[in-house]
Amino acid sequence: MNLKDEFSSLGNYFSPRIIGEVNDQYIKVVKIKGQEVPWHNHENEDELFYVVKGTLLMEIENQPDLILKKGDLFVVKKGKNHRVSSKKECLIMLIESKTTEHTGKITSAITKSIEDQFC
Amino acid sequence: MNLKDEFSSLGNYFSPRIIGEVNDQYIKVVKIKGQEVPWHNHENEDELFYVVKGTLLMEIENQPDLILKKGDLFVVKKGKNHRVSSKKECLIMLIESKTTEHTGKITSAITKSIEDQFC
Repeated sequence: MNLKDEFSSLGNYFSPRIIGEVNDQYIKVVKIKGQEVPWHNHENEDELFYVVKGTLLMEIENQPDLILKKGDLFVVKKGKNHRVSSKKECLIMLIESKTTEHTGKITSAITKSIEDQFC
Repeated sequence: MNLKDEFSSLGNYFSPRIIGEVNDQYIKVVKIKGQEVPWHNHENEDELFYVVKGTLLMEIENQPDLILKKGDLFVVKKGKNHRVSSKKECLIMLIESKTTEHTGKITSAITKSIEDQFC
């Protein structure tokens, strides 16, 4: 599969879609525009972000902000409070444990169950 | 980290380097040119290939050959005999279990221990 092609079938912003799996991890694509992700963490799980298009602001509590650009890869370590946003459309691949809830234990307007991430 | 930058520090072809980890998986970069990977499999582990530059020939036993191009992502499922090659230089990111031996149980001229993949 081609990553860019996978984004073309995505509907809403902030709505991850599972496109495959490798061992106990899901491979997901998501498009982001704006600031809707709440501060959250994944207590026991790391989360890989890879920017396919655009620019992503990665905020991590008690750390300097990071600007991730196309081709940049970053792993948020388990337990770290974080949120991501983007002024313009940004396309991201995520790799995270099958058990990971995408907004952690925080429920917000964008929160989507794992089952719904297959759609 | 930027994936393309990570490749600039790679020495030999077919010599994976670990650049990070996400949960129980290593993130690796490797550059390939030619046909030196032996047929092999990983009995219990899937292996993710993502092409950053170039074109990769993915051969899987009893399946049609696949040509993977820049931006293409493919997961070789556990137990599948496979090998990869490229006529011209090809840059790949791999995501695989920390326990994965990159040429499976086959030892060849390119085989490198996990410890050596940190260099």
